[in-house]
Amino acid sequence: MELMFVTGNEHKLHEAKTVMKKVKWAVTQADLGYPEIQADTLEEIAHFGINWCIEKLKKPCFIEDAGLFIDALHGFPGPYSKYVFNTIGNEGILRLLDGICNRDAVFKSVVAYNNGSKTHIFAGEAKGQIGSEIKGDGGFCYDPLFIPEESALSFAEMETKEKNALSHRGKSLNKLMNYFREYEYR
Amino acid sequence: MELMFVTGNEHKLHEAKTVMKKVKWAVTQADLGYPEIQADTLEEIAHFGINWCIEKLKKPCFIEDAGLFIDALHGFPGPYSKYVFNTIGNEGILRLLDGICNRDAVFKSVVAYNNGSKTHIFAGEAKGQIGSEIKGDGGFCYDPLFIPEESALSFAEMETKEKNALSHRGKSLNKLMNYFREYEYR
Repeated sequence: MELMFVTGNEHKLHEAKTVMKKVKWAVTQADLGYPEIQADTLEEIAHFGINWCIEKLKKPCFIEDAGLFIDALHGFPGPYSKYVFNTIGNEGILRLLDGICNRDAVFKSVVAYNNGSKTHIFAGEAKGQIGSEIKGDGGFCYDPLFIPEESALSFAEMETKEKNALSHRGKSLNKLMNYFREYEYR
Repeated sequence: MELMFVTGNEHKLHEAKTVMKKVKWAVTQADLGYPEIQADTLEEIAHFGINWCIEKLKKPCFIEDAGLFIDALHGFPGPYSKYVFNTIGNEGILRLLDGICNRDAVFKSVVAYNNGSKTHIFAGEAKGQIGSEIKGDGGFCYDPLFIPEESALSFAEMETKEKNALSHRGKSLNKLMNYFREYEYR
């Protein structure tokens, strides 16, 4: 069985392959550079994106979009996490939170899968805290800052398998996998 | 003569009306909520947006998108200026620049006009500095932080007419006006 993942992100591809390996599905990559709209929610962005992909590819595929939502910053950087990381980086986030006690944050992931006729959305969340410093060199983006609930380690200090068990993307990808198990290939 | 401006922003509408008044053109508002894509340049966002608007309205119209690009922050907040303002605000920008000597910034504006068959892009820039504090209560968004070159006042301390003479949006709107004068209604 083969699933097409529309992404240009090698880290995400690796995480998806690791999840899908459990059920022996191969994940193939299509790097199309689909348009992401500016919106307040990942769901809106994912709906727009998957519609574009399905029109282009004309076969079943999925996309994934994620963001870090920091409570004390009114959800910033949220849907624009990638851009914010590429400009102000983790140092910028630490600067914005300097002296602020509330470090609560949520990593959200939305997977949108279209089977050729209908779109299904699978969301995953990981609650946690923004650490006071950059920790670890695994993962990518905000992983060195994010310490999930009930963990002493940041995402960047974990192995992919360990991170997937706790992470927002691991959860949304697992929901996609379960959906496949139950409905698409019974 | 009448020009349709697709925007939900009353401040921008007011600025456009003030510019167009000089040549006795009325600006009417269409608040369509067109999709803005995530992209590195305002031009890309404007192209996508005006194509959507012209397909929907099927008559000549224009849109305008602007952003503040701060040198020391690698262009942040750039195309996502509105979202960044709504979350971390001017206080966040000051925090990110705390202790940083290079306060150079550029306000950019892009007007996209489609006459029913072709899109024309008009860009305007205002160079300046990010002040060390919030100054003035006019304008909107980052205006209280932005001190244009050769001025001691922030945009928020100026009258609309005075600001339009210096501002990115004043410049792009003036280019649109000149284009109309020269080509569309000779």
